[in-house]
Parts: sequence; C-alpha cells; structure tokens
Amino acid sequence: MSAQHRVVILGGGFGGLYAAKALKNAPSQVTLLDRRNFHLFQPLLYQVATGSLSPGEIASPLRAILRKQPNTQVLLGEALDLDTERRKVILDSGDLDYDTLIVATGSGDSYFGHDEWQRVAPGLKTIEHATQIRHKILYAFEAAEKEHDPQKRREWLTFVLVGAGATGVELAGALGEIAHDTLRRDFRSIRPEEAVILLLEGAPRVLTAFDPKLSAKAEAALSRIGVTTRTNVFVTDIDEAGVTVKTPSGVERIAARTVIWSAGVRASQFGEVLQKRAGAALDHSGRVIVNPDCSVPGHPEIFVIGDLSHFEEKSTPLAGVAQVAMQQGAYVAKLICRRLSGEAKSAVIRPFHYFDKGTLAVIGRAAAVGQIGPMRISGLLAWLAWLLIHLMYLVEFSNRILVFIHWGFLYLTFDRGARLITGSDTLPPVPGENRPTRSEENATVAK
Amino acid sequence: MSAQHRVVILGGGFGGLYAAKALKNAPSQVTLLDRRNFHLFQPLLYQVATGSLSPGEIASPLRAILRKQPNTQVLLGEALDLDTERRKVILDSGDLDYDTLIVATGSGDSYFGHDEWQRVAPGLKTIEHATQIRHKILYAFEAAEKEHDPQKRREWLTFVLVGAGATGVELAGALGEIAHDTLRRDFRSIRPEEAVILLLEGAPRVLTAFDPKLSAKAEAALSRIGVTTRTNVFVTDIDEAGVTVKTPSGVERIAARTVIWSAGVRASQFGEVLQKRAGAALDHSGRVIVNPDCSVPGHPEIFVIGDLSHFEEKSTPLAGVAQVAMQQGAYVAKLICRRLSGEAKSAVIRPFHYFDKGTLAVIGRAAAVGQIGPMRISGLLAWLAWLLIHLMYLVEFSNRILVFIHWGFLYLTFDRGARLITGSDTLPPVPGENRPTRSEENATVAK
Repeated sequence: MSAQHRVVILGGGFGGLYAAKALKNAPSQVTLLDRRNFHLFQPLLYQVATGSLSPGEIASPLRAILRKQPNTQVLLGEALDLDTERRKVILDSGDLDYDTLIVATGSGDSYFGHDEWQRVAPGLKTIEHATQIRHKILYAFEAAEKEHDPQKRREWLTFVLVGAGATGVELAGALGEIAHDTLRRDFRSIRPEEAVILLLEGAPRVLTAFDPKLSAKAEAALSRIGVTTRTNVFVTDIDEAGVTVKTPSGVERIAARTVIWSAGVRASQFGEVLQKRAGAALDHSGRVIVNPDCSVPGHPEIFVIGDLSHFEEKSTPLAGVAQVAMQQGAYVAKLICRRLSGEAKSAVIRPFHYFDKGTLAVIGRAAAVGQIGPMRISGLLAWLAWLLIHLMYLVEFSNRILVFIHWGFLYLTFDRGARLITGSDTLPPVPGENRPTRSEENATVAK
Repeated sequence: MSAQHRVVILGGGFGGLYAAKALKNAPSQVTLLDRRNFHLFQPLLYQVATGSLSPGEIASPLRAILRKQPNTQVLLGEALDLDTERRKVILDSGDLDYDTLIVATGSGDSYFGHDEWQRVAPGLKTIEHATQIRHKILYAFEAAEKEHDPQKRREWLTFVLVGAGATGVELAGALGEIAHDTLRRDFRSIRPEEAVILLLEGAPRVLTAFDPKLSAKAEAALSRIGVTTRTNVFVTDIDEAGVTVKTPSGVERIAARTVIWSAGVRASQFGEVLQKRAGAALDHSGRVIVNPDCSVPGHPEIFVIGDLSHFEEKSTPLAGVAQVAMQQGAYVAKLICRRLSGEAKSAVIRPFHYFDKGTLAVIGRAAAVGQIGPMRISGLLAWLAWLLIHLMYLVEFSNRILVFIHWGFLYLTFDRGARLITGSDTLPPVPGENRPTRSEENATVAK
C-alpha cells in the first residue's frame, strides 16, 4: 500500500476549519495547524469586548470540533517558512510534510504605518484584544466615578471608535447600550448615559459596504442609542490622552481616554513567505493573488483561501468575510477529493464561485441592517435574521444552545454578566501578535 | 440633620460583600472598596483553571450585586494606608473618610520564603491565576503531542500538585477527569490517560481538616481517576523542569513541566498596616487577632473579618473559609446597626459565634467527601450536597441559573467547552499581586 496523501492546512479560522471538515471522508491524512488551540467565532468577538459573552462562549477547542475525524490531526504551532521543493512547512518546532497545502492564515489589524497607535488604540482580532478592550471600557467608567475634576471626568467618559465598518458600528452600538442601559443604575457619582461615544469615519458615510440607504438607517439607529457619528474625519494622531483629527473644517483635538481601532486590515505575514518561496504575487494589502481554483499560480498543490487570498470575481476582489472563507474551504476540499479520485485528470474543474448569502451588521438590541440579494432590510427583521444566522452557526459548530439561552436572558434583563475587568489593559505576549504591519491605503487615516 | 454615619468596607470577597448586603437598610452611607470590579466565587475557581467554566460564570460585577442598595457605593481602588486619628483610609487615588471601618482584604498564596517558585508553580487565587493554570495544563498536552522524545513527552505529561488541601484535591480530581474523559479522543500521538498526576502532601494524609476516614475515601476516589497521592513528602525546590522532594526514603527529583501550588496561605498585607497604625497584634501567618466582637483591640470602630482575622473559638482559630467570612460580615453589620440605633450603649453585645454548617471537598463527578456536624458523608450523596450548596449560593448572588444548566450539560457530555489556551502562561500585572510574601510554617515545605 502506498503512503497516504497528506493535506496540511495552516490556520483554524473559518477557511481552514471548513476545509478540514469537508475533508472528513477524503482518502488523505489531514493536519490542521494553528497557533491557538481553538476556533474563534470572530463575528461575536465584540460581545466579549463589551461584556455580554465570555470567551468560552464564542470559542471552541479545535480538537473537540475535529475529534470524530480519525483522518485529521490538530497541531499547535506556527508556520514560519516553506520549502516548496521538498514540500515541507517549517514550523517553530520541526517540519511538516505535505502533498497539498492549504494556507488560511487570515488577517490582522493594520495601523497604516502607525504601529505605535496599537498600544493606545487596540483593535479587535483575538480573545486577548477583546478582554483588553473590555478592561479599558469598564475601567474608564470606574475611573470617572472616582474623578472629581469635571474636565478629566469627561475625558474618561469619552469613547472614540476609529472606523465605521461592521466592527466599529457593532462596538459603538454595544457601547451605547452599556452606557444607557446596563450601567444606568450602577454608579453614584457619574451618570453613565452622559458618556460621549464618537464613531469616526473617513468616508462620507458609515458601513460603506452597504447600500447608502442602509448607512443612513444605521446612523439614525446609532444616534438613538447615544452614538455620535462623524464622517469625513481622518485620524492624524492617537496618544493616551486622545485623538487628533483632520476634518473638512480643520484640525481638531478630541480628548478621550479610550480609543478603539477598527479601521484597517492587513493580510497575514505568510503571504510574504508564499511570495518568496512560491513566487506568488501580492496585492497592495498583502493578499495573495490566486487562480480561479484558489491555487497559487505555478503551484497547483498550494491553495490560499479566506482573508489572505485575493480572488477576483467580476474584476473586484472578494471581501474578507467569513462566508467567502467557508465557501473557499469547502471548494478546495472538494477539488482535492476529485484529484485524489482521479476524476480531475480528465474533467475540467469549475472555478470557484462565491454565492453571496447577504451581509448584515447589528447595531443593538432589535436594530440591524442587511442586504440579501436585491433585498434591503433593517430594524427588528434584520436583527432577527442576524440572530438566527449567528446562532445557527454557533450551534452547528459547538452545540452552544446555551449561548442562545444566555442571550435570551441578556436581552430580557439588559444585563451584561461578563463585564469583568480581568487581566491587564495591555496585551500579553500572544504567538505571532504585534508583528510589524504593512503600510497601505486607508480612508480613515490622513495621508 | 447631622451627617450620616459612614461605613467603609475594604474588600468585596465573601466577608465584605456579606457585610455590605447586611447594611442595606442601615442608616448609614456604605462604601465598598475593592481592587477588582467583581465578586469572585472562589470555591469554583478550580473549574475555570480546568476548563469547565468561564470566568464570567463564577464572577459577578460588584456594582450589579449592590445596584439596588441606594445607600451603598462601590469604588475601584486599593487601600494603602490608614490614618486612625483622622479616620481616613489612604487610597492609591485620594482618601476615604470613615466612621466605622470593616477590613476584609482576605489572603493570598504563601510560598514560605520561596517567592521564586511562584513564577513556575502558580497558585489559584484570582481569575488570572486560573487562566494561567488552564494555559499551562492544556499547553502541556499540546506540547506532548508534538514531542517525539519519549522522556520529554513524559515530562510534559507529568503534573505535580503541591499541597493536598481542598484546592489541591479538587484540582487533582479535575485533572484526572481531563486526562481520562475530556481529552481521551482528542489527540493522535499521545494517550492523555497516560498522564501522571501527582498530589504531594507533607502531612501523612490528604485533607487534614477532615476526618481520617474521609481522607482515606478521598485518596481512594483520587486513585480511581488516575491521581497518585504521595504523603509525607516535602518540597525542597521547584524549577521549570520539575520538583525536588524530601521523602522518608531520601531526596528525589520529579521531572515535570507543570507544577501547581496549593500549599500555603498568607494573610493580606493590610494586616501590617493595622499593626502599624492601630497597634493590632498579628499571629504567625499575619492574621489580625481580634476581639470576640471582631473589632481590633483598642479600636471599637475597626473590624477585621474573614481570612485576615484570627478569631479564636475554643482556643483554636477559625479556618479561612467562606462560611466564616460570611457569618462575620453579617454579624458586624448587625452590630453596627445596633450601635447606630443606640441599642448597644445599654445592652451587652453577644460575641461572634461561628455556626459550622459543615465542610465539603469535591473530587470529581459524583465523588466528594464531607462532614456536617457529627455526620460523615462521601460519594454521590456528598457530591449532590456540594452541588446543591454551591448552586444555591451562585443563584443567590447572580441569578446564575445558567451555570446550573451548563453544569448539567457538562456532566452529561463529559465536555469542557472552556478549555481555551488564552493570554500567556505568565501572569499579567494585576493590582496588588506579586507582593513579597511572609515566611511561615508549612507542612509541605522542608525546613
């Protein structure tokens, strides 16, 4: 018997995990490598950052998810380099042989050449980021409660969110609810509802990926829960005491103790390894430009999927969203199965096609906007759709019916039981974090 | 109208929180100060350390618990010093005036003069400790899976727990379950059930606070889930590669990558402040020796309750358990109310009396030991009693019916959904942690 085909998957996010799951019955030996031992349901990370959910409720151990796949092993480690000749991934500890490689290492925050801002304005990419942001937000209210100087108190109660994409809007909405509902009766000296929540955006409207009508609805919904949206505003500096911005009417300083970054995304560093070792071409945000079958040009045995891939459909690259990664993962797995069965040698393989199920952004309780095909929805309907989709996914992956029940409680009681100030307000050293980021275009940072 | 009587409570653990709650209707202004913004249900902390529960499930924001007490305010901060003349607590930010002071600052781990061991052998006192220990335990299995050298693999799969009190036994039991049930099918190269779990104790038996018959039952139950108990063993050194012990038959080296400390307790540093400023006498573990009414001799306006107090009943100091702290908190609150109503001036106030409701220690699913009055219980009955008592308490404090449901799931499915490796395996800087500890007697450390 000849040795089995070895598939190595780098990254256990949406792309990598879906690929691994779809290879369940493949006649191959599958290894899923990740720096972390869990799959993170990133779309709900903002709920950890705002004290609604605990990390354990939105993350599942990869080993548990893949336990029942005897052909699959999970390995904790980091891919540092690649040997395409000998088909080896160089890890932080040892090598890993592959016959087919799927790279799904995703993306991180980009500070557009201002990495020094990261220290004072964390982004929201990992569990650690989420608890750090939770720490900052909750601590700000506590510090305000102790502060006697009205000016300083106001600085503690000013929250600035840079970037009004889905994450920025979701965080702003949750912050509005914290100030107006959750903490309303918690303090004696301050009134949390006096908090100023500023959502800054360089573009002329929030949620630029959505229809302008939905952007307007989102702005109105945000305004109702006390969030001030400021568009056409470019950040030129961030430090511990606040943010400097360039507006149409000039330069302005906003004094604020809490600044959160949700403005830019950079592709994973492994793109550069592929550029160096496999001759891959990168786009201006560091993503790998792939073939119609998601493989790297000249390397049919290497696939790049998810946020790290630059896949063009109708001359536009697909967005870095979970749906794309999941579909690419499933597609690539199917392609590999076909190749192994010999089918592919004769038949022409159809290129990957993204089926857009729609996009949703949630603003708060019973408030969301979404576009599903030609439909535009908002309000309670959009929110229910959002809830349903996210819960279905969570339940599918981890039987988290409990999260469903928990949410039921939260929405009935306006409570946020997980609003604990734990750890520190700086990040602990996490594998692969805090690497230098690449400089790129950005609508919210002044050039 | 004269100014209201001001009660300041230092510490939001069991003692401080119960005192605050019992002062709900007192004609006084109550301030509860804590370094953290939450009350931690410490008896279940080992379940966070072993991946069964998330931090948010065993901790509740103090502000939420005390929200409906208009006479009570919560303040985040640390008490550094005391001015008994002017009746002021000196905080890290400003002062706090009091008429009556309740000190309930608790205890931490003691390494008996070997503070350098803390870095490699964390104790279990805070949420951060728990996630650090969880990180270490889970990472050890991951590292073993990657390791090819059988000797090194064995070191990763050896877990040493120093000290077989309730915490040590509970951690050991949970570790046994992790290795034998939870992770059983998760790995491909290692067999988690080959893990060696050593519970070291200097005394001749585990759970010395219990009846010897129960100690024997606990040892038998531990043995059934793969925990090796070693008594009469004294630790002489701990480093990254293992533990050196002195046994009746000589000095021995145990190679182990994971060592957890549950051997000693030190009283909070605020005892020394009371010694210096209020002339309080401390016992050999730094606890404040108090009057029969829990006040500091010579200072009827200062009370010390919980782990920091040395309260003698029948010539033995009460143990540092939650029950004692809670009852002392309620007692002191009642005493203050009586004083304020003028009652106390005439009547003699009865001294505090501890009503021992019994002690329980859990070993694993359906296994526990307990003594309630003259009764000795073990097995399923003791476990059900333990479950009932802990859930009642959790529900009382935070309406955590969800934790009940969650546990139901866990016990049915053998799952530990919160087994995430997050943060780092070293502690982040937490307020007031990592202070120098005092040296004291210890049965598990060789002299």
